[in-house]
Amino acid sequence: MSAGPAPTLGPDATIGILGGGQLGRMLVLAAARLGLKCHVFCPEPQSPAFDVVRRVTEADYTDRAALDRFAADVDVVTYEFENVPAETAAFLSARTPVLPDPNVLAITQDRLAEKRFVGSLGIATARFAPVDAPAELAAALEQVGRPAVLKTRRFGYDGKGQVAIHNGSDAQTAWRAIGAQPAILEVFVPFEREISVVAARARDGRVECFDVTENEHRDHILKISRVPADIPAAVAAEAQRIAKAIVEAFGYVGVLAVEMFVVKSDGEHTVLVNEIAPRVHNSGHWTIDGASVSQFEQHIRAIAGWPLATPVRRGRIEMINLLGAEVEDYRQWLAAPDAAVHLYGKASTRPGRKMGHVTRVWPSR
Amino acid sequence: MSAGPAPTLGPDATIGILGGGQLGRMLVLAAARLGLKCHVFCPEPQSPAFDVVRRVTEADYTDRAALDRFAADVDVVTYEFENVPAETAAFLSARTPVLPDPNVLAITQDRLAEKRFVGSLGIATARFAPVDAPAELAAALEQVGRPAVLKTRRFGYDGKGQVAIHNGSDAQTAWRAIGAQPAILEVFVPFEREISVVAARARDGRVECFDVTENEHRDHILKISRVPADIPAAVAAEAQRIAKAIVEAFGYVGVLAVEMFVVKSDGEHTVLVNEIAPRVHNSGHWTIDGASVSQFEQHIRAIAGWPLATPVRRGRIEMINLLGAEVEDYRQWLAAPDAAVHLYGKASTRPGRKMGHVTRVWPSR
Repeated sequence: MSAGPAPTLGPDATIGILGGGQLGRMLVLAAARLGLKCHVFCPEPQSPAFDVVRRVTEADYTDRAALDRFAADVDVVTYEFENVPAETAAFLSARTPVLPDPNVLAITQDRLAEKRFVGSLGIATARFAPVDAPAELAAALEQVGRPAVLKTRRFGYDGKGQVAIHNGSDAQTAWRAIGAQPAILEVFVPFEREISVVAARARDGRVECFDVTENEHRDHILKISRVPADIPAAVAAEAQRIAKAIVEAFGYVGVLAVEMFVVKSDGEHTVLVNEIAPRVHNSGHWTIDGASVSQFEQHIRAIAGWPLATPVRRGRIEMINLLGAEVEDYRQWLAAPDAAVHLYGKASTRPGRKMGHVTRVWPSR
Repeated sequence: MSAGPAPTLGPDATIGILGGGQLGRMLVLAAARLGLKCHVFCPEPQSPAFDVVRRVTEADYTDRAALDRFAADVDVVTYEFENVPAETAAFLSARTPVLPDPNVLAITQDRLAEKRFVGSLGIATARFAPVDAPAELAAALEQVGRPAVLKTRRFGYDGKGQVAIHNGSDAQTAWRAIGAQPAILEVFVPFEREISVVAARARDGRVECFDVTENEHRDHILKISRVPADIPAAVAAEAQRIAKAIVEAFGYVGVLAVEMFVVKSDGEHTVLVNEIAPRVHNSGHWTIDGASVSQFEQHIRAIAGWPLATPVRRGRIEMINLLGAEVEDYRQWLAAPDAAVHLYGKASTRPGRKMGHVTRVWPSR
C-alpha cells in the first residue's frame, strides 16, 4: 500500500521530519527560509529541532496513533537519520508520501546489503564477507585477510558496533564484543584519505553534487571537514561519478552522502565506497556558509518537487565539529574572523556529543 | 524602574521578540543558528514568526498579564519594529532587560524628534518645520519651500501617513489627507540616489557597519537594494560615519538602519538623513546570503552580549523584494542561477505586501 506519488508542494505546505537532532533542526531552518512549515516527530523530549517548530510530536516511533496524526498533519514525510524502523516507514508510506523512498532504508540499514548493492553497480568497496554465526568467522578472515574490522550489519554509527581484528586478536572475542549478532567482516583499508560526496537528486532526475570533502575523524567521530579535498581532479570526478551512480540506481529523491576511502598504491589512486548515508550528512555542514545553497535546502527542494540549485563553493573551507566540552569555547569562535558559528541548543553535554560546528571560509579558492 | 543591565546570555537563553512579521522570523532563524531559543509575542494569529518557534504569545501589546508572563519566560526582550507602544516597552523594561533601549523608540517614533536629534549631531537632513495645527502650515511652507512633503509625526511607514504638496496643491487638503494630526513638513529632496547603512553596535561599544546599500522604491515600498551603492568612496565613508555617529549618540545596542538621500549639486555630493529604523531593516536582507554574517545574527550577537562579527561582502549583490502577487513566481526564482530565495510563509497575499525576497550574488566584486 502506498499513498501514491508525492505532490509538488505549495509554499504553504508542511513537511514532516522524523528525528529531532541537529540534522532535523538544520532541515527545519532551511525549510523556514523557503516559507515552508515543519512538524517534527521525535521520541526524545529535549530534541534540538523541537525549538524551531510550532508543531511537534513527542512519541515513540512505534506509536501508531501518534504516527497517524502526524501523517494527517503533513504533506510529505522525510527523515534525518537512517535508522527509522522499517515498520514506521511502511506505516507512514501508506498514509502520506515518504521521501526518500523507504526502500532505500532497507538497503542502507544493513551493511551487507549496502556493500552488495554498491558492488552490483560495479563500484569498488573493501573486500568483505558475511558473518552470520561465530563458526563463519574463521573462513571470513581467511577470505578477506587481516587486519580486518568486524561490524554489526545493523544500527552502527560513529564507530559503534565495530571492532578491529588484528593479527594477534582472538576472533571469538571480537564476535562477542559486537554483541554476537549478524555481522560483516571487512578488510582494513590502509587509506590515504577519507572523503565524502553529498549529492542531491530531484524528482525530475537532475543530480547536483557538492564538491568533494576531505574528512578527518577522531575516535570514529568526524572532527574536521576540508573542501576542496586534497586529491587529483580525476579522483574527485570519480568520487562524484560514484555518488551520482548510487543516487540514480536508487531512483533517490533528496540528499544522500557517500563516504569513501582514497587508497594509493603503486602511485595509482583508487576510490572505495565505505558507507552510504541516505540523508543530509555532517560532512556537508560546510555548505550552509560555504556554498550558494546548503545541503539542507537542496534536500527540502528535492522532496518538495522544487528545482535544485546549482551549488557554487565560496572558497576554501574548513568545518570543525564542536564535540562535548569543546562547545564551551563558543565565545572564542564567535570572535574569530572568518568563522561562522552554529550551536545546536542541546541541553546537556556528553563526551563526543556533537554540540555545534564552526565553518571557516577563505574566499580565495 | 528598570530590570537593570542586561546579562550576557548563555547558550541556553531565550530571547523574547515583540512582533511576528518577517523581520521577527528572520531574527528567530538567526538566533536558532546560534543555539538560542526565542519566544515571539504578537497580536496577529497567523504571524510568520510563529511558525519557527516553540513558544508564542498571541496577545495585544496592552495585555499586561500576557506581557508579564512573556517577560518571566525570557532573558532579554527585543523588537522587530519601531512602533512598539511606549507603555509596553516601559512595562517590560521594569521586568526584564529590553534592547535596544526603549528610550530610542521615543525619538524614532516621532519624525520631528528624530530630525531634531539628527540635527543635534551636526548631521544634515532635509529642511523641515513642525506643523501642529492647520494654521501653521502656511508659515511652514514659507519656511521650507515647495514642493514639500507633509508627514504625520507618528506611525508612518512604507509611504503611509504622508502627502506631497506641489506648487499648485491646496495645503489644507493635504492636512486633511494625513488625518489632521501633528505633522512635520519637509522640503522635497531632489535626490540622486537613496541609500542606507545598517549598523550594529555591541554593548562594549564596538560598531560594525555593513556596506552602503542603494535602494530603489516603487510606490514608497522598497523594491530593489543593490550593493555596493554606485557612489564615490568618500560618500560611502560619510554615510557610514553618519550611521556610526547615530548609534553612538544613542548608546545603542543592536542593529539599526539609517536611510539617507544622496544629493548632487554643482558636482558636489551631500548626504542627508531621511529616516532612522531602530531595528533590522529590509535594505539589509542581502546580508543573509551576501555577507559573512547577516544583520539578523549581528543583532542577536549584540543583544546577547556576544562579540560582533566583521562582515565581509561576498560580491556584487542585488536584493529584490517579492511584493504581493510577485511571490507566485517563486518557482522561476528557485530555478534562476545565483538566486537565493526567501519566502516568509504569509498566509495571504495583498498588493504591495512583502511576501519574500530574492538575493542574487555575483562573486566578482
